[in-house]
Amino acid sequence: MQDKLLKLLEDVAQGNLEPQKALENLKNLDFEPVGDFAKIDRHRTLRTGFPEVIFGIGKTPEQILQIMQVMNQHGSIVMATKIEASVFSLLQPTLRQLRYFPEAKICCLGESMPLRSGTITILTAGTADLPIAEEAAITAELCGFTVKRLWDVGVAGIHRLLSHREMLTQAEVLIVVAGMEGAIASVVAGLVSCPVIAVPTSIGYGASFNGLAPLLTMLNSCATGIGVMNIDNGFGAAMLAGKILNLAYRDKTITV
Amino acid sequence: MQDKLLKLLEDVAQGNLEPQKALENLKNLDFEPVGDFAKIDRHRTLRTGFPEVIFGIGKTPEQILQIMQVMNQHGSIVMATKIEASVFSLLQPTLRQLRYFPEAKICCLGESMPLRSGTITILTAGTADLPIAEEAAITAELCGFTVKRLWDVGVAGIHRLLSHREMLTQAEVLIVVAGMEGAIASVVAGLVSCPVIAVPTSIGYGASFNGLAPLLTMLNSCATGIGVMNIDNGFGAAMLAGKILNLAYRDKTITV
Amino acid sequence: MQDKLLKLLEDVAQGNLEPQKALENLKNLDFEPVGDFAKIDRHRTLRTGFPEVIFGIGKTPEQILQIMQVMNQHGSIVMATKIEASVFSLLQPTLRQLRYFPEAKICCLGESMPLRSGTITILTAGTADLPIAEEAAITAELCGFTVKRLWDVGVAGIHRLLSHREMLTQAEVLIVVAGMEGAIASVVAGLVSCPVIAVPTSIGYGASFNGLAPLLTMLNSCATGIGVMNIDNGFGAAMLAGKILNLAYRDKTITV
Amino acid sequence: MQDKLLKLLEDVAQGNLEPQKALENLKNLDFEPVGDFAKIDRHRTLRTGFPEVIFGIGKTPEQILQIMQVMNQHGSIVMATKIEASVFSLLQPTLRQLRYFPEAKICCLGESMPLRSGTITILTAGTADLPIAEEAAITAELCGFTVKRLWDVGVAGIHRLLSHREMLTQAEVLIVVAGMEGAIASVVAGLVSCPVIAVPTSIGYGASFNGLAPLLTMLNSCATGIGVMNIDNGFGAAMLAGKILNLAYRDKTITV
Amino acid sequence: MQDKLLKLLEDVAQGNLEPQKALENLKNLDFEPVGDFAKIDRHRTLRTGFPEVIFGIGKTPEQILQIMQVMNQHGSIVMATKIEASVFSLLQPTLRQLRYFPEAKICCLGESMPLRSGTITILTAGTADLPIAEEAAITAELCGFTVKRLWDVGVAGIHRLLSHREMLTQAEVLIVVAGMEGAIASVVAGLVSCPVIAVPTSIGYGASFNGLAPLLTMLNSCATGIGVMNIDNGFGAAMLAGKILNLAYRDKTITV
Amino acid sequence: MQDKLLKLLEDVAQGNLEPQKALENLKNLDFEPVGDFAKIDRHRTLRTGFPEVIFGIGKTPEQILQIMQVMNQHGSIVMATKIEASVFSLLQPTLRQLRYFPEAKICCLGESMPLRSGTITILTAGTADLPIAEEAAITAELCGFTVKRLWDVGVAGIHRLLSHREMLTQAEVLIVVAGMEGAIASVVAGLVSCPVIAVPTSIGYGASFNGLAPLLTMLNSCATGIGVMNIDNGFGAAMLAGKILNLAYRDKTITV
Amino acid sequence: MQDKLLKLLEDVAQGNLEPQKALENLKNLDFEPVGDFAKIDRHRTLRTGFPEVIFGIGKTPEQILQIMQVMNQHGSIVMATKIEASVFSLLQPTLRQLRYFPEAKICCLGESMPLRSGTITILTAGTADLPIAEEAAITAELCGFTVKRLWDVGVAGIHRLLSHREMLTQAEVLIVVAGMEGAIASVVAGLVSCPVIAVPTSIGYGASFNGLAPLLTMLNSCATGIGVMNIDNGFGAAMLAGKILNLAYRDKTITV
Amino acid sequence: MQDKLLKLLEDVAQGNLEPQKALENLKNLDFEPVGDFAKIDRHRTLRTGFPEVIFGIGKTPEQILQIMQVMNQHGSIVMATKIEASVFSLLQPTLRQLRYFPEAKICCLGESMPLRSGTITILTAGTADLPIAEEAAITAELCGFTVKRLWDVGVAGIHRLLSHREMLTQAEVLIVVAGMEGAIASVVAGLVSCPVIAVPTSIGYGASFNGLAPLLTMLNSCATGIGVMNIDNGFGAAMLAGKILNLAYRDKTITV
Repeated sequence: MQDKLLKLLEDVAQGNLEPQKALENLKNLDFEPVGDFAKIDRHRTLRTGFPEVIFGIGKTPEQILQIMQVMNQHGSIVMATKIEASVFSLLQPTLRQLRYFPEAKICCLGESMPLRSGTITILTAGTADLPIAEEAAITAELCGFTVKRLWDVGVAGIHRLLSHREMLTQAEVLIVVAGMEGAIASVVAGLVSCPVIAVPTSIGYGASFNGLAPLLTMLNSCATGIGVMNIDNGFGAAMLAGKILNLAYRDKTITV
Repeated sequence: MQDKLLKLLEDVAQGNLEPQKALENLKNLDFEPVGDFAKIDRHRTLRTGFPEVIFGIGKTPEQILQIMQVMNQHGSIVMATKIEASVFSLLQPTLRQLRYFPEAKICCLGESMPLRSGTITILTAGTADLPIAEEAAITAELCGFTVKRLWDVGVAGIHRLLSHREMLTQAEVLIVVAGMEGAIASVVAGLVSCPVIAVPTSIGYGASFNGLAPLLTMLNSCATGIGVMNIDNGFGAAMLAGKILNLAYRDKTITV
Repeated sequence: MQDKLLKLLEDVAQGNLEPQKALENLKNLDFEPVGDFAKIDRHRTLRTGFPEVIFGIGKTPEQILQIMQVMNQHGSIVMATKIEASVFSLLQPTLRQLRYFPEAKICCLGESMPLRSGTITILTAGTADLPIAEEAAITAELCGFTVKRLWDVGVAGIHRLLSHREMLTQAEVLIVVAGMEGAIASVVAGLVSCPVIAVPTSIGYGASFNGLAPLLTMLNSCATGIGVMNIDNGFGAAMLAGKILNLAYRDKTITV
Repeated sequence: MQDKLLKLLEDVAQGNLEPQKALENLKNLDFEPVGDFAKIDRHRTLRTGFPEVIFGIGKTPEQILQIMQVMNQHGSIVMATKIEASVFSLLQPTLRQLRYFPEAKICCLGESMPLRSGTITILTAGTADLPIAEEAAITAELCGFTVKRLWDVGVAGIHRLLSHREMLTQAEVLIVVAGMEGAIASVVAGLVSCPVIAVPTSIGYGASFNGLAPLLTMLNSCATGIGVMNIDNGFGAAMLAGKILNLAYRDKTITV
Repeated sequence: MQDKLLKLLEDVAQGNLEPQKALENLKNLDFEPVGDFAKIDRHRTLRTGFPEVIFGIGKTPEQILQIMQVMNQHGSIVMATKIEASVFSLLQPTLRQLRYFPEAKICCLGESMPLRSGTITILTAGTADLPIAEEAAITAELCGFTVKRLWDVGVAGIHRLLSHREMLTQAEVLIVVAGMEGAIASVVAGLVSCPVIAVPTSIGYGASFNGLAPLLTMLNSCATGIGVMNIDNGFGAAMLAGKILNLAYRDKTITV
Repeated sequence: MQDKLLKLLEDVAQGNLEPQKALENLKNLDFEPVGDFAKIDRHRTLRTGFPEVIFGIGKTPEQILQIMQVMNQHGSIVMATKIEASVFSLLQPTLRQLRYFPEAKICCLGESMPLRSGTITILTAGTADLPIAEEAAITAELCGFTVKRLWDVGVAGIHRLLSHREMLTQAEVLIVVAGMEGAIASVVAGLVSCPVIAVPTSIGYGASFNGLAPLLTMLNSCATGIGVMNIDNGFGAAMLAGKILNLAYRDKTITV
Repeated sequence: MQDKLLKLLEDVAQGNLEPQKALENLKNLDFEPVGDFAKIDRHRTLRTGFPEVIFGIGKTPEQILQIMQVMNQHGSIVMATKIEASVFSLLQPTLRQLRYFPEAKICCLGESMPLRSGTITILTAGTADLPIAEEAAITAELCGFTVKRLWDVGVAGIHRLLSHREMLTQAEVLIVVAGMEGAIASVVAGLVSCPVIAVPTSIGYGASFNGLAPLLTMLNSCATGIGVMNIDNGFGAAMLAGKILNLAYRDKTITV
Repeated sequence: MQDKLLKLLEDVAQGNLEPQKALENLKNLDFEPVGDFAKIDRHRTLRTGFPEVIFGIGKTPEQILQIMQVMNQHGSIVMATKIEASVFSLLQPTLRQLRYFPEAKICCLGESMPLRSGTITILTAGTADLPIAEEAAITAELCGFTVKRLWDVGVAGIHRLLSHREMLTQAEVLIVVAGMEGAIASVVAGLVSCPVIAVPTSIGYGASFNGLAPLLTMLNSCATGIGVMNIDNGFGAAMLAGKILNLAYRDKTITV
C-alpha cells in the first residue's frame, strides 16, 4: 500500500499522472462492485493470504451466486460459510464446479490453497459440536493448513482428554469447540503452553441460552490466555489460528 | 405431625378436648412470634434435625438479636449466616457467649450439635472462594458432620485436582465451590460417583456478571447429576449435603 | 483405578511389563472410539452404576445409531434422551428391539437394570410438566429404582399438595418438576426433611422467558437445601437422586 | 394560577358562580410551578382522593423542601417516599412539624386523612421485607385506611401461613410483599378470592438479581389474578389497594 | 372450610366418626383426579365464583379433552385459554357443544355464568393487541361481567384517547392492553381514579424483546397504582378485574 | 480535506514537494499528542463547528487538566462532561478561569461560542431528570444555541404537558429527557412534527434496571421518528440537535 | 365524522365559515373508526406531511385490507410496512393497484408524494442489511425525498468506506444500517458533521442476540450525536430523516 | 512430563523405586501448598515460560503476602494483578523489594524475565482505557517482550488511527483495548493481517452495561480472526500475545 502510494506520488512528480487523476486513483484501487448490493474487496486475498469469503447469513441465493461469480473471475478461491444444503442445491446448477461440505455448511469454488506450513489441532467436547468444529477444520484446510481432529473429549470423562495429553502439548495452536458448559477450554488451556482459541457453540438447552453459558465460561476461564470467538464461529477461529501460524512461519505469500 | 393430629382427634373422641378448642389447637402448634416482625418455626429443628438459622441479609442487628434470644430460650443451637464483622460486634456485648467465624461470616449461639455419622468433602477452585466454602464447612460442622477441606484445586492446573483423585472417589458427598468460570464442577462430577453439589461464587470480574458465569456453567454441566445452589450459597449446600447424609445413615434423631 | 495403577507398576517392577509399554497402557484403558466422531466411555457404567446415556440434542440419527450399536456390543443397557418420535422412527428399523417412551422422549436398548433399593418420589406442579417429569421417572426406572408419581399438585390449590403430606414426609428423595413460577419447590422443601431436587421447566409464556422464571425461583428458594437442575433436565435429576440412593443403600455394584 | 384561583373564588363569593359550577372549574385548572424545576399537580388530591406525594429518588433535599412547602400552603397532607434518614434530618429543621417513619422511609407533612372504610391486609414472607411492607402500610394509614399486618409467614414453613387462613379469607384486599423467590404470592392467591397485589422486594442475593427473581415469580404465578408492582414499590401497592377499596365503598369524597 | 372442619370435629366428639377415619377425611375433601395426569380442584368454582379454567399451553389435546369432560360432569362452565384453532378442531368432534372464540383463543363448555354487577372497560393501544384484549374480554363475559371495548387508542395520537376521557373517568375498573412500548398505561392511569390493570403484549419487534419493553414500562410507570400482569396474560387481567368487582358488589355467590 | 489533498498533489506535480515528503504530510495533518496518553483532534472544531469536548469518565484529574491545557492553547472553547464537583475543585486552582455547572456536571474553559440561529426545546418528565437535561441544555448553550426548558411535565398528569402544546408544536427540535418508564417520549412525538430526540435516564429503581426500562420504551415507541440516545447522554442529544439546526440554518462556519 | 365534515364544508360553501378558519377546524377533528378494531388518524398526513402508515406486524390480512380501504377513500397515499410477500398476495386481488416492494416489505396504495427538497444518504455495512435499508429508502422515496444508496461498505475493509468520503461529507442527513457489531456507525459519525441516524439490524448470529450487539454499539458510540432507532426499524429512520429535512427546507406543506 | 514418567517407570523396572513409592511420586511432583488455602503450581513457570501470577481479586492481603513469599523462595519472578494501591501499601513493609505499577495495578517481586524475541503492539480507543492497556503492557514487559504503545486512537477520529497504518501493518501481534462501543477492534482487524486480540473495558456508562457493549461488539466483529478476552482482562491478552510470539520464535526456554 505504502509502495503503491509512493509510486503514485512519484508518477505525479514526474508528470506521468495529473493531480486530478491521481486523486481519483487514490479512491479506486481496492474494490469492485457486484450489482448494486455488494463491494468485493479486491485486495483482501493479497492482504491477508486467505480465500475470499462470503458470510452466508441474510444473503439471498441470488446475491451469493453473483458475488461468487464476480470473485471467481479473478481465479482465486472463493468460499461461503453458513450455507444450508437447500441453498447449495440452488447454486449448484449454475456453479457446476462448486464443492459443498455438508457438515461444515461451507461452499467452495476453486482449488484449495496450496499446502503451507503449520498444523491446527481442533478439539470438540461432544459429538454435537462437530458442525462448528468442521467449519473451522474445512476453513483451515481450504487455506492450506494441516488439521488434526480430536472429537468428543469433553471433561465429563477427563481421561478421554488426558490420554491425548501428548498430542495436546505438541500442538502449535489449538481450537477448542464446546457447547453445554464449555469447561473443556479451561482444562485444555491449563495443560498446554501454545495459543488456545475457544469457540462456544449453541449446543445445549435450557439455561445454555443458545450458547451464552459456554461463552461466559470461556471468557471467565481461570486458565490464562484464551482467545474467545463468537458463539458458533468456527470460521473465525480458523482464521485467527491461520494468522498465528502465518506469523510463526513468516509466510512470504502475504504482503499488505 | 400425623401422630399429634391423631392424638388430638382421639382426645376429642374421648371428650378430653372440646371441638372448638381442638380447632384452635390445630392452628397454634407450630411457631412463636418474636416482637411483631418474626415468627420462629418451633418445630423446624425437630423436623429437620438441623439448627435454627437466621438469614442475616436485610435484617437489622436489633432484629437479629431479638430472634436469637427467643430462639435460644429453648436451648437449641442458633446460627446466623451472612453476618458482617461489624454486625457481630454490635451483637456480642449483649450475647456474650456468641461465637463468630469471620471467614464464614457465621454467628453461633449454643453448643455445636453432637457429632453424627457422615463426612462432607468440600473443594474450592481458588483461594478467593474460601469465604463461601467456609460458610458451607462451618454450617456442616455446627450440624455435627465431619468436613474434609480441599482448597485451591481449580482446573487451570488439573494435576492439583487429579492428585487427590483417591480422596474424591472415596467421598460420600461432595460440595464444589467455584467462581470465575466454575469448570471444576464438571471435572469433579465426571471423576466420582457420589452426589455432587455445586456452589457458584461471585468471585470474578467483567463477564462473570457477579457469578452468573459459574452458575450457568454448573447448570449446563456435561457431567450428570449435579445439584446447583444459588450464587454464594454455601449454607444451602451444607444443608443439602447434610440431608443426604441423614438419609444415608438413617439418622434417628429426625422425625417429622 | 488406584489398584490398576499399582498392579501396573508391580508388573513393571517384576519385569512383566516394559516401561515403554506401561506408558502406553496408562493412556489406553478407558474408552473406545465410534467412527471418528465419538468416544464411548467404557468404564462409565462400571464407575457410576448407571446406564450408558446418549444426549440426543445436536446429534444426527446416524450418529445416535452408531453410538448405540457400539455401546450395545458390550451388553449393557443404553439409553438416549431428548429423542423426538421422528428420530425414533428412523432408528427403529435398524434397532428392532429399541424401546421408546414417547412422553419422556427416551429411547432404550437392552433390559432395564435389575431392581435396586430406594424409591424416588416425583411431583409436578401441572399437567404440562409431565414430559420432563417422565424423563426423570423413566430414567430412574431404567436404572432399577422404584418411582412414585404425584402429578398436578401446584400451589394454586395448596390442599392438593397438603393432602399428600404423609407421602411427602415419608419420601427418601424428592424431585419437584415445575414451570410457570415454580413456587411448589419452596413449599415442598419446607414440608420435608429429605433431599429435594428441583427441575424448572420451560412451560409458561411471556415473562417465564423459557424457564428462567422457575429457575430463578428455585435457586432463590427460602426453603433450604434444594439442589437445582438445568431447565427441562429431568434426566439429570434422576441421576442425582439415584446417586443419593446409592449412597444410602451402599450399593455394592458400584466401584470406581 | 394564583390569580385564576382568586378570581374564581371571588366570583363564587359574589354569587356570580354557583359552587357546583365552581367545583367543575376547579378541576379544569391544573398545576402550579415550584421554582423552575417542578410542577405541582394542584388537583391530584381532589382527583384521586389521596395525598400529594413526592417520589424522593433523584431529587435534592432542597427540591424536596421547596415542593413540600408549596404543596403544604394548600393545607392538604403531603407525603414523600424513599426518604433516607439523613435527608429527613436536613428537612426537619425547616419543616418542624414533619413526621418521619424510619422503617417505611416516608416523610409526612400535615394530618393523616380521616379514617375511611376498608381494610388492607399486608403480608411479608420474611422479616427483611418489612421496610417495603411498612412503606405500603404507612401509605395506606396516611390515606385513612385500616391496615392489618402479618409479618414473616413465608412458605418455607407453610403452617405459619395456613394458621392465618381465616384472616386471609376474610381480607378485602391483600398485599403480599416478598423477596428471595417470592413463592408466597402464589400460595396466598390460591387460598383467597379477594384481589391480591404482589410486591417483589430486592431482598436476597446472587441469582435474585436485585429482585428480578421474585418479580418473575409473581408475574408467572400459576394462581390467577395477581396484580404485580415494581420491585420494592410498597407505595404503589397501597395506592392500588386504596383505589380498589374506594370503588368497593363508593367513596363519595372522590369525583373526577 | 372452617365450618366443615368444626362439623367434622363435632362428629368425632359425638362418636359419629372414628378418629382414624376423620384423619382420612381431612385429606380427601377437595379435589378429584383425572386419569393420572391432573387433579381437578372441586371447590375452586365455589371458592372463587369463577369458571373452571384449563391453561392450554403444554397440554396435549387428549389431556384437555379428558379434563374438560370430568369438569363438565358437575355441570359448571369450563373454559380453556391459549387454544389454537387446530386444537379446537380436534376437540370439537367429541365435544359437540364446545364454543370457540378464535380471536381470544378461548374454548368454552357450558353456559356463560349469569350476568352479575360490574363493568370492565378494556383498552388497547393498537389493533394488533386485540387477541390479548379479547382474551380478557371473553373471559370477563363468560364470568358474567359487562365489558366495554375501546380498541386502538395508543398515545401516538393522544387525541384518540383523550376524546374518550369521559368514558375513562366513569370506568369502574380498567384493563389496558399494549405492546410496542406500552406508554398508554401511564397516560390512562394518570387520567382516572379507578383501579388500572396493565397487560403488556408481545406485539412489537427488535428491542421489544417479546414484550419485555412494555412489561418494564408498565412496572416503572410514573402513574401510581397500576397492577401489572404477565406478558400476553389477558385472562389473568380479567380475573383480577372480576375479583375487584366482586368485592365492590359484595357478590353473595362467593363463599370459601 | 479534498482541497488540501489536491493542493498537496499539485505541489508534488509542480516539484514544490518531494514525493517522500508528501507521503509524510499525508499522515500528519490532523492531531496533536498530549503527554503520551491522548491525541487531540486538531480539526474536530473546524470539522464539526462544536467545542472540543473531554468525556470525563475514567480519566484522572491530571489527564483532564493536561488535555484541557493543550486544547486551550489554540484558543477554542473546551468543555468536559460528567465532571464531579470534587474533580472540579482539583482542576480549579490550576485553571482559574474554569467555569463549572454543578447540576449539569460540565466544566468549561473559554468563552461560549457566539450565538447562532436555532432553538432547542428540552423537556423532562420529572424533577429528578434535571441533571441530564441540564447537561443537554448547557452543552447547547455553550455551542451558541438558544434553549427553552420545560421541566416536570411527565404523563402521569398529562394536562401539564398538553397545556404547553403550542410551545411543543412550534419547536424546531425537541429533546425529551425521562427516567422511570419514559412514556413521555411517545406522547410528545405524537403531538409534534419536528425531529424528537429522546434521552432515557437512570432515574428510577427496581425494574428500571438503571435506565433499561425507559431506553426500551423509547426504542419501541409507537410514535415514529424518535432518535434515541444512550442512557443519561444529555450531551449527545444536544450535539445531534445542534447538527440538525446547523443543517436547517446552513451554518457557514462549518466546513470539512 | 362524515357528518361533521360535510357540515363544515357546507358552512364554508355558504360563507358562514372562512376557509382559513375551516382549515383550523380541520385540525381539531380527529379520527375515524374502521370496523371495531382500528381508529384512523384522519389528520396525521396533514399534521406530519407524511403518508398514512400501517404497521403490519400482528395485524391480520383482513384488518390491513379494511384499514387501507378506509384510508384510501380520502385519496392520500397509504403505505404498510413489514408486509410479507404471502400477505401481499392476499391483499392484491382486492386492491388491484397495490404496489409491493419485496425487498423492503412495503405495500403502497396511491401515488408517491410529490418530490420535495432534501436528500437522504443511506449506507449499509453489509449486503444482508439491504432489506432494512430498503425499508428506509422506499419510505423516503414514497414521501418525496431523494435517496442516495451506498451498500456494503462495512469497516472490515475501511477503504471501501473512505473512498466515498466526499459523498459522506456532502450528505445532508445520513442513515447507517448495520448488523453484526455495527461499528460503521461510529466511523461514519466521526467523518461527517451532518446528523447521523443509526439502525441496528438483526443480521448476525450467536452473541449478536438478534441485534442487541449493534444496538448497544450504536448507543455507546464514541462519536457524538447519533440518533439510534429500534432494531430493524428502517421505516422510523426515514421518518426522522424526513422530519430533519422538512425543518431544513422549511417545508410549507406542513403545518400543525 | 512424558520424560519424567518414562524415567520413573524405568526406575521401577530397574528396582530403584518401589511400586508403592512410585505411586506416591506420581501424585507429588507438581505443586506445593501455602498455608491451607492455596496450592502453588510448581511447574507452571517451567510449563508456560511465564511468571508465577496471583490473581488479586477476592484474596486477602495476608493470603497474597504468603503466596508471594512461598513462590519467591524458588527465585522466579512473581506478579500479582488487580492490586489496589491500598493493598500494595499493606504488602510493601514486609516485601521491601516489591515493585508496584499503579496504573496497571500490578505488583511484582523479583527481576523481570530476560528480554526475549517478539514485539506486542497495544492500542487503546481512549485515554480512559489506559489502566487495562497498561495491565497488558506491564505484564508483557515483565515477561521479557518488547511493547509498543499507541494510546487514544479511537474511531471517532479515524485519521488518528489511519495515520499509524504503517505501524499497524508491521505489527507482529496486536492488542486492542477499548470501552464505550469498542468499534476500533473491527477497524484495526480489517487493516492488518497479524493476529488481533481484543480487550473490552468497562469504561462507559448507561447502556455500556459495564463493558457488555464492547464485549458484544468484539465478539460480533465483521472483521475475521479476532480473539476476545474477558472485560478488563489486559493480563490475559498479554499472555495470549506472549504465547503467540513464543510459537513464532520457537522459544527454547519452554518445555512441558
